Amino acid sequence: MQFTCAKEDLLTAIGTVNRAASKMQKTILECILFSCGETGITLRATDIALSIKTEMNAQVEQTGDAAIPAKLLYEIIGRFPESDVTFKSVGENSMEISCLNSKVVLQQMDADEFPIFPALEDKEQIKLPQCVLRTMINQTLFAAAVNEDKPILTGLLFDIEPGSLTVVALDGYRMAVRRQAAISDIARKCVIPSRTLREVSRIISDTEENVKISISGNMALFEAGNTEIYTRLLEGEYINYKNLLPADCATSVKVETNMLKDSLERASILAREGNNNVVKFEISEKNLEITSNSEMGNIDEQIPVITEGKDLVIAFNAKYVLDVLKNVEESEVLMQYNTGVSPCVVKQENSDAYEYLILPVQLREE
Amino acid sequence: MQFTCAKEDLLTAIGTVNRAASKMQKTILECILFSCGETGITLRATDIALSIKTEMNAQVEQTGDAAIPAKLLYEIIGRFPESDVTFKSVGENSMEISCLNSKVVLQQMDADEFPIFPALEDKEQIKLPQCVLRTMINQTLFAAAVNEDKPILTGLLFDIEPGSLTVVALDGYRMAVRRQAAISDIARKCVIPSRTLREVSRIISDTEENVKISISGNMALFEAGNTEIYTRLLEGEYINYKNLLPADCATSVKVETNMLKDSLERASILAREGNNNVVKFEISEKNLEITSNSEMGNIDEQIPVITEGKDLVIAFNAKYVLDVLKNVEESEVLMQYNTGVSPCVVKQENSDAYEYLILPVQLREE
Repeated sequence: MQFTCAKEDLLTAIGTVNRAASKMQKTILECILFSCGETGITLRATDIALSIKTEMNAQVEQTGDAAIPAKLLYEIIGRFPESDVTFKSVGENSMEISCLNSKVVLQQMDADEFPIFPALEDKEQIKLPQCVLRTMINQTLFAAAVNEDKPILTGLLFDIEPGSLTVVALDGYRMAVRRQAAISDIARKCVIPSRTLREVSRIISDTEENVKISISGNMALFEAGNTEIYTRLLEGEYINYKNLLPADCATSVKVETNMLKDSLERASILAREGNNNVVKFEISEKNLEITSNSEMGNIDEQIPVITEGKDLVIAFNAKYVLDVLKNVEESEVLMQYNTGVSPCVVKQENSDAYEYLILPVQLREE
Repeated sequence: MQFTCAKEDLLTAIGTVNRAASKMQKTILECILFSCGETGITLRATDIALSIKTEMNAQVEQTGDAAIPAKLLYEIIGRFPESDVTFKSVGENSMEISCLNSKVVLQQMDADEFPIFPALEDKEQIKLPQCVLRTMINQTLFAAAVNEDKPILTGLLFDIEPGSLTVVALDGYRMAVRRQAAISDIARKCVIPSRTLREVSRIISDTEENVKISISGNMALFEAGNTEIYTRLLEGEYINYKNLLPADCATSVKVETNMLKDSLERASILAREGNNNVVKFEISEKNLEITSNSEMGNIDEQIPVITEGKDLVIAFNAKYVLDVLKNVEESEVLMQYNTGVSPCVVKQENSDAYEYLILPVQLREE
């Protein structure tokens, strides 16, 4: 195997696949498999649960396969000067990689041991712009469960319907629901691991070009440009999220996103000191008062708002409200309440593109 | 006590003193002491070993003293909008701090318990531009000892002579020596803790304005603008560094700083994998070859150089050479050698402004 390519292309290709490589050293799974054909190179990395494959242009002198440890390779290529890089097999199981006055010889592993990549049959498909999917992932991922008590909740529900995609995350304290039009004529639900979606969000670009999502059996495949990302699905029944969204609202508050965010960030400095991050909201017609206190002191924030409906007192974990406010793009949001002990919904005015549900915390009697 | 000031001035003043405050919570040492006089505010923080004091303008309504926990205060003020901030004593021991629609009430501690600041008598002084002292500190600090086996080596030697300052750091494997002209008519040596100098470097600015250093007994004082930094000196005898610098050189190599740095960074990726970061230098008339190897593979770097004197083979811990190359500003450096087992000196051509001494490591027989 021998080829020459631009350092930048090589670094991009390695960077695309290398996070699927396992961190377990001295195993074939820590390697990237380079498959050098007549016209270009395919790079593959996998830790079985997640597999990524991408293509790269190169000037090929001799075809062949090679498995090279991903982490070491990525670090070395990253330090190379901006020039052409040549890979050349030497001896039994070594790869000589050279760039200008630098020459590195790395031990290969046995390419034949590299796992065969999954293949999807009877695919059901949906398409949407890469920039849209990235936003949908980033605006929901934070609400997925982190601990493994209920493994299904560590993933995101992809609820595909003809003409639309809804992405849902929930962890028992809050829920994020994002809907968007998409090209699809199927109806299918599946739960995709958070880790996969972090990689998908990193790899897809901010373009209007489509990403194609295919689902078959217990696998999903994301295709974007030259890159394919295969993932196992999480197994189990996801909660019926539609039932959790309240139908009515007794109090609706329109507030400037950044003003509320800044106030909550100040309040949570005191709230987290021995008060479990609890902040109290007192909602009246034109004013939202946020207070929190600890043995270090207390804080009082006054925020101008437009309220429709009843006055209300309710308390939240400041973090859950902040997570939402940090992830919405609009300068104003609506917060809809029913009672002081029922969930609040954060959404855009006149749109169902997103709905965030946040459970309140019970106020101790004072 | 009551005063109003610009948020930005307040944040700068707190940021200047707050790193001297102790991290031990619920003690007076975690506080900043605000002393509010007729015309402005003095802020002080100390953990006894290091004490910092600065001045700030404010519109004073009522004079007085207050001790407020530094960390909490800094975080809250940092989150305030860019506007005026008002401090006002309320009740027995609370401070109300308000900014636009935010109002925070913090518990004070007893200002009378705050330690009295040191005073220096019979001062011996030296002056030099703040930007020069900052560079001298940053170009030597990395070579000071980190572990406490020989406490004196965790500080930097300030060797003051009439008309000059030399700053020295060494840790047993390498030594940094920086010399600069300064306004002084004294001869005095003292060893200043690294931690103090990190704060000095952070607080002094990149201006030509002088910083004044005063030494008296076991204390030193740095004065820059409105700010005073007091520090204890380290006690004990510092090594006679002048004796360590070799008088002669058998091999002198002129090399491009960045080219050598880039090669060493690549080589050290392989060198650190099970080879204690050892890189081998083979010096000939026009070429420096750097090699390193591990069970993962090996690397070979060729660097054009101009050598005067004998060919030489020598090995180093790559980190010690890199630390020097990352901290010099010149595009070319001289590396001077005697034998493969004696220290190398890195310096500028035709200047003694800095001399870095690096001990080689012994090459295993191959």
